[in-house]
Amino acid sequence: MTAIRKTAGLRFNRKGKYVLGLDLGGTKIAVGLVNLKGKVINSLREPTPLGSGPEGVCERMAEMSKEILLRTGVGRREIAGIGIGAGGPLDLKKGMLLSPPNLPGFHGYPLKDKIEEYTGMHAALENDANAAALGEMMFGAGRKAKNLIYMTVSTGIGGGIIVDGKLVHGVGWSAGEVGHMTLKPDGPECNCGNRGCLEALSSGTAIAKRAKEEVGENPSSLILKVAEGGKNTIDAEVVFRAADLGDTVACRIIDEALFYLGIGIGNLITAFSPETVILGGGLTGAGDRLFVRVREIVKERVKLVPVNKIPIVPAGLGESAGIVGAASLLLQKPVGV
Amino acid sequence: MTAIRKTAGLRFNRKGKYVLGLDLGGTKIAVGLVNLKGKVINSLREPTPLGSGPEGVCERMAEMSKEILLRTGVGRREIAGIGIGAGGPLDLKKGMLLSPPNLPGFHGYPLKDKIEEYTGMHAALENDANAAALGEMMFGAGRKAKNLIYMTVSTGIGGGIIVDGKLVHGVGWSAGEVGHMTLKPDGPECNCGNRGCLEALSSGTAIAKRAKEEVGENPSSLILKVAEGGKNTIDAEVVFRAADLGDTVACRIIDEALFYLGIGIGNLITAFSPETVILGGGLTGAGDRLFVRVREIVKERVKLVPVNKIPIVPAGLGESAGIVGAASLLLQKPVGV
Repeated sequence: MTAIRKTAGLRFNRKGKYVLGLDLGGTKIAVGLVNLKGKVINSLREPTPLGSGPEGVCERMAEMSKEILLRTGVGRREIAGIGIGAGGPLDLKKGMLLSPPNLPGFHGYPLKDKIEEYTGMHAALENDANAAALGEMMFGAGRKAKNLIYMTVSTGIGGGIIVDGKLVHGVGWSAGEVGHMTLKPDGPECNCGNRGCLEALSSGTAIAKRAKEEVGENPSSLILKVAEGGKNTIDAEVVFRAADLGDTVACRIIDEALFYLGIGIGNLITAFSPETVILGGGLTGAGDRLFVRVREIVKERVKLVPVNKIPIVPAGLGESAGIVGAASLLLQKPVGV
Repeated sequence: MTAIRKTAGLRFNRKGKYVLGLDLGGTKIAVGLVNLKGKVINSLREPTPLGSGPEGVCERMAEMSKEILLRTGVGRREIAGIGIGAGGPLDLKKGMLLSPPNLPGFHGYPLKDKIEEYTGMHAALENDANAAALGEMMFGAGRKAKNLIYMTVSTGIGGGIIVDGKLVHGVGWSAGEVGHMTLKPDGPECNCGNRGCLEALSSGTAIAKRAKEEVGENPSSLILKVAEGGKNTIDAEVVFRAADLGDTVACRIIDEALFYLGIGIGNLITAFSPETVILGGGLTGAGDRLFVRVREIVKERVKLVPVNKIPIVPAGLGESAGIVGAASLLLQKPVGV
């Protein structure tokens, strides 16, 4: 059984039997009631009301929390606390967001304190990819591991690294930015300001961008047909579907994206030699097409680490990753136990 | 003050006031008497007698240890134990070397037990780059850090990663093989069997190899003149010296090697965000020419980690790194203290 964590300075309700997990993203917010075994009892999900500013978003998440308690008949006294996962960068000491690219207006917003204020319950904040890594270790695909790398491959590429059962936070809580390793120095520009980052080569956005560029030169490609609309409706899923139909251009684009994804994962394995690598995020919906190729490249490239002992597996928490990850912040075992 | 570590299963002499550090490399062996503050009191260094096999090498290191005790008048009872650093791969559980490329004949050799047998003192074994990382954290350039990356840039490129004051060992004790991250997928072949590894791009061997190839096509290059002999006398130092004289070919070779060294270090910083990166090994003798360029590239490439808070510095232990690193295995503070 998982024990409620005692956290310095914050008084969680140690008699609580549930935690609330809050997932704050640029496109959606989600709130879930989670039991001590990481099971989601009830949840709500809706678009992020960016128009109402940070204060409005925060208030809405507090309302959603209340609504879930009402729905389930769980009383406030049964709640141990609230875990919050949000897109970085964050100042975890101050419980604050720092110029998050997907949450305009949230710079310097003291999210942790505000959630505590709006709900009257104690809260803990963490980078969303880190929270998901923790959730996977505690309740998902990494349950047997104490050393793992979690990567989310979606519109962007993020990650969380766990060593000895603990998240690696790094200077300024900035560790785990695995999407921004340079893998092709003269490669495409990345949103971060660098060139040839893994994210600029292998994310959903990178795949869609590349496809939009190429369909012009290759009018016979099936990509536009699958997109059922103009160039603007092309996304990574469309490119994967065109590749499934055998379209040469789509296959080449997917192949190159997965090549660099394999190189990136291989480099992390070479440095860390984790017990497992867990991949989540929208692109992993491609299943075997993605995993088989990535495993192949890792095997081809990594010679000094026993890769056959390091499974590369899909995330186990699926859609609940954000909520369970956030909740797991309060469910961590005390270090050393 | 550093405390002697209590290690499960092994009985170190807890009343000891010194430790012996043994450094076993493919070209030389070194033995040193080190006090509890990491200071080398006395040391011996000589070529590895590879001709006499693992048994002979082991016996010789035991003799050197005795000789040092005689020289210094330190009694066996004052020795806490012996730390051994050796080139990987190793099986640390069995205290054994596993097909080390630079130590032919040592495959499966139970080095730890044999040293204990020959000396009658308790011993601990570790990968040499890991031992050096630990030594740097305890007594060298990383004394204020608990999270650091150590890299040795020499004929090969190796490393050790420390998180939360502890070495990251990984599956099969294979973590920290930072020289074998793929940075140029179609790059030169690497000894490990892959292509375009950092080691194949930026090590001393890689620089020398590249220079040997290029002098044929560029007979006016100063490299051959500086080498004062045939192609075979070209090594990395020669290329650095020719570059210092302004030779275009040498400058280009050095520049490309340092470019990839910067990319590799940048990628590690992006993933780990350590408090500091410490560089040791022969090539760091190039001083500012190396460090200034590497720092420039890291700054250019790493955008999401506060690199200006992460110093990239020369190793602090210099020539004693091997001995002090090995000795530090016995001088680690108990975890959590």
